[in-house]
Amino acid sequence: MRERGVKDMAGKSVAVVGATGQVGGVVLRLLAERNFPVSSLRVMSSARSAGSGITWQGQEYVVEDAAIADLSGIDIAIFSAGGGTSRELAPKFASAGAIVIDNSSAWRMDPDVPLVVSEVNPEEVKNAKKGIIANPNCSTIQMVVALNDIYKQFGLKRLVISTYQSVTGTGHAAVKQMKDERQGLKAQKVYPYQIDQNCFPHGGDFLENGYTTEEMKLIDETRKIFNDSSIKITATVVRIPVIGGHSESINVETHKPFQIQEIIRTLILMN
Amino acid sequence: MRERGVKDMAGKSVAVVGATGQVGGVVLRLLAERNFPVSSLRVMSSARSAGSGITWQGQEYVVEDAAIADLSGIDIAIFSAGGGTSRELAPKFASAGAIVIDNSSAWRMDPDVPLVVSEVNPEEVKNAKKGIIANPNCSTIQMVVALNDIYKQFGLKRLVISTYQSVTGTGHAAVKQMKDERQGLKAQKVYPYQIDQNCFPHGGDFLENGYTTEEMKLIDETRKIFNDSSIKITATVVRIPVIGGHSESINVETHKPFQIQEIIRTLILMN
Repeated sequence: MRERGVKDMAGKSVAVVGATGQVGGVVLRLLAERNFPVSSLRVMSSARSAGSGITWQGQEYVVEDAAIADLSGIDIAIFSAGGGTSRELAPKFASAGAIVIDNSSAWRMDPDVPLVVSEVNPEEVKNAKKGIIANPNCSTIQMVVALNDIYKQFGLKRLVISTYQSVTGTGHAAVKQMKDERQGLKAQKVYPYQIDQNCFPHGGDFLENGYTTEEMKLIDETRKIFNDSSIKITATVVRIPVIGGHSESINVETHKPFQIQEIIRTLILMN
Repeated sequence: MRERGVKDMAGKSVAVVGATGQVGGVVLRLLAERNFPVSSLRVMSSARSAGSGITWQGQEYVVEDAAIADLSGIDIAIFSAGGGTSRELAPKFASAGAIVIDNSSAWRMDPDVPLVVSEVNPEEVKNAKKGIIANPNCSTIQMVVALNDIYKQFGLKRLVISTYQSVTGTGHAAVKQMKDERQGLKAQKVYPYQIDQNCFPHGGDFLENGYTTEEMKLIDETRKIFNDSSIKITATVVRIPVIGGHSESINVETHKPFQIQEIIRTLILMN
């Protein structure tokens, strides 16, 4: 995929929105690492961080306030700026001609926005009717990549998911909470509890159905990505004191019978 | 239960075997906290720790080598000394007239040894044909206590278990590994990997069936305690960087239909 992308997208103008955040920083690093053909780069954030500087590929960039920036000439806008900002600004970027790739939960369940994992349903990008392409919640992505070939070969009847999610998924402030707690400093709590040497099921907010918002993402997004609402899914999201890297325990029921060696082969071939 | 015990067992001679270990220390603390009617206490360990001193209830006790101690006159021997020691010494203590309460995995699956959780199957203590009563693996105990009333009211068809197990279950050395890693010291590894800021499914050894020894304990012991081999059980045991306190995510399928409020009521009444 990457090679094709490089050919198709030679010299694109890229804007990274949420460039000063946890994920924005990784986006910038990956654009460099993968030699993504960036003809011009713009880094944007909320008004709060606007005006600060970011160094990328040896060059200095001034962070622009995304809400008031001139949006003309942007080919691809990569958003990691939180749901509220995406809901408000993604349509404006799209109207100005950009393809928005949004990392927040704002657009994922919109029927006119494809929810894409490049290893699973890359063909969906052509259905970006609003000029917005969403990518899923982090724990959903890694799960559907692992399940994709099992789904194709045996079908998925039911998933029972328990996650071991790192604090990184919550963002900079959560990483800081954990680091401060580790050093015995008074930490500003992003979570309702201490996270260092602890674990708890508070993945986002608790909803009326008893699930948390993070759990509902795993359930809803997985069905949308596989385009199969018949898959029964239950999820328990747990935050653990790890920085970087989610883990998951997934019990899978398939429609067709299998030999365990067939499943193991599928998972080995995936890598 | 505790009040009846206090009446029945006024003035018992108690031996704690493995008294210098992680669990042995907690046993001694609980005997004191609960005012267990100890007429005389003996503290024992392997030859390595024998001769050292333990203070209990303001009195000093010399740790005896359990392998060569005089076993006469012991009413209750509480063993937390590891499987090998229990296999070898528990029958000797029982022959000498003691009731052995064993915390290791050595005797749990022996058909002549009851596997008892006091909240679930206390009546089984009367079937201690060998003078040995086993108690289950820690993650099994807390699970069956939570499931007991659900089992009685609705039956258990299938359990999908994922655990979040603290390092304390592995013992002193694992706690030390984690503490050393937290301080950036070169740690002696009890686990195959760093445990600080990490998690891994290495609960005991991996068996040929793909499960670990810790996972098989959850499966086998749960069936024995409920005396019901028809319960389908699968388990994923994961070690997380927490000291003290296991957590579990348990997906439960029952034989009889239920309203979720009935299950919640059951769990609230349990406490």
